[in-house]
Amino acid sequence: MTHPIATTPTPPYYAVVFTSQRDAPDPDYAVTAARMAELAVQQAGYLGVESVRTEDGAGITVSYWASEAAIADWKRQVEHAAARDRGRRDWYRHYRVRVARVERDYGGPPPAGEVES
Amino acid sequence: MTHPIATTPTPPYYAVVFTSQRDAPDPDYAVTAARMAELAVQQAGYLGVESVRTEDGAGITVSYWASEAAIADWKRQVEHAAARDRGRRDWYRHYRVRVARVERDYGGPPPAGEVES
Repeated sequence: MTHPIATTPTPPYYAVVFTSQRDAPDPDYAVTAARMAELAVQQAGYLGVESVRTEDGAGITVSYWASEAAIADWKRQVEHAAARDRGRRDWYRHYRVRVARVERDYGGPPPAGEVES
Repeated sequence: MTHPIATTPTPPYYAVVFTSQRDAPDPDYAVTAARMAELAVQQAGYLGVESVRTEDGAGITVSYWASEAAIADWKRQVEHAAARDRGRRDWYRHYRVRVARVERDYGGPPPAGEVES
């Protein structure tokens, strides 16, 4: 991947913005994060993810979904629920989740034919 | 600031998710970014910002706003518009902007009395 930007369809769709401050690094964290990425891709309604974390543990992950129902299904996924509990207990000093409906998007450099809204 | 999480009001409110891949570092960039942060705080309807960028230039910045009108006003702000043009020309290899309506949020460790939705 040459850049961090997810390819998403024409809005509307949904975004889950997960902002967090991680505690001291834990090898389990990377394993679980990779497994969650692998599982998310298999979920119905998953559209993509963008994730950035600094070396001091501040991170923003935005996952994109076709519907609120798809987000709810992912939240209920058993292995994901267990990982989330683990994260709350062991990995995140602070976190906030925001569920939002994407109304419009634009970007650049635009592919040929794309017009900014 | 001990963590990257913005304090935002009870939803609904709006989020602008700006995901980007920056080109090689440029001293002007930091100066302009700091100035934009200073200006944004002065805008009516500004609620807060979260921003994370890795050393290799991948970044996600989420700014929060009271309304779509507040976002439009900030987009028209003259100095911001000039900085945005500069960013598109000189600083960002790729970027994507998504404007979204935050429907619900939750987080932790929850302050006393906060119940997750």
